[in-house]
Amino acid sequence: MTTRRILGIDPGSRITGIGIIDTDGRRNQHVFSTCLRLGDASFPERLGTIFSELSRIIREYQPLEMAIESVFVSNNPASALKLGQARGAAICAGVIAGLPVAEYSPKEVKQATVGKGGADKAQVQHMVKLLLSLQGRLQVDTADALAVALCHAHASHLQHRLRSTVA
Amino acid sequence: MTTRRILGIDPGSRITGIGIIDTDGRRNQHVFSTCLRLGDASFPERLGTIFSELSRIIREYQPLEMAIESVFVSNNPASALKLGQARGAAICAGVIAGLPVAEYSPKEVKQATVGKGGADKAQVQHMVKLLLSLQGRLQVDTADALAVALCHAHASHLQHRLRSTVA
Repeated sequence: MTTRRILGIDPGSRITGIGIIDTDGRRNQHVFSTCLRLGDASFPERLGTIFSELSRIIREYQPLEMAIESVFVSNNPASALKLGQARGAAICAGVIAGLPVAEYSPKEVKQATVGKGGADKAQVQHMVKLLLSLQGRLQVDTADALAVALCHAHASHLQHRLRSTVA
Repeated sequence: MTTRRILGIDPGSRITGIGIIDTDGRRNQHVFSTCLRLGDASFPERLGTIFSELSRIIREYQPLEMAIESVFVSNNPASALKLGQARGAAICAGVIAGLPVAEYSPKEVKQATVGKGGADKAQVQHMVKLLLSLQGRLQVDTADALAVALCHAHASHLQHRLRSTVA
């Protein structure tokens, strides 16, 4: 079975989680993960950091696909705007590097990792550690980034299988 | 007096206006303007186009500063999110090219071009054409991009003068 390398992103204007896994469709392996702490720099600078750091990580680890959580649009348009900008910066880095970008809702990500769409963050963290055999503490945004990568590995494996069955 | 080249952006996920002017603080000259029609491509592709086209235009025309309209946050979080993503892509292109990015509210842009914050789009179009001696039809988003560049020329000229007076 071929191995595919997937980059998962949990974008945010203060902290952006990044996770990379290898998958053969059944087994998944942790390759790299981190969270970018964007601190108190100006907003444009923070967006620039998301783009340039992600571009650097893509060059270094050469993932083939990118997955990002679609945003839960709250009732607060000002937060939606900020989050949108961070998301725009992250998606740009993927598209410019030539990666196809897939989107999954928070519910789909929870369903794929924990098995139920209403799971809380602690359960997602726990299952990500279990599925990727990780020890120690896992930062919550990093866990979310790895979770969306796992979700994509799962969803795209099903699509691949479906295509093989139909063909 | 030194001439400064300013890039103005009116970002949008369907159409993004781009305008470049030269200014010596008193007189402003039109250098280049266009609008990117992003059509019906996927959302990530549209963001990629904003980033790559803007990067290309920055390389070609070598502006020194960038100005962008801050967003009127409507009551619709879904639109705010989309607009935020387009804005994030545009700001990234500026920051990655090393340009300082200034933000102006729609009210400030109207005040600087038309002389009153409550002006409508047709008045802005009219004044942009007058101030830059442009003939013929001017696309509305292109006019807005040139207007934010003019606003920055005006505002930063005042700041420069203020600094000279204080120093």
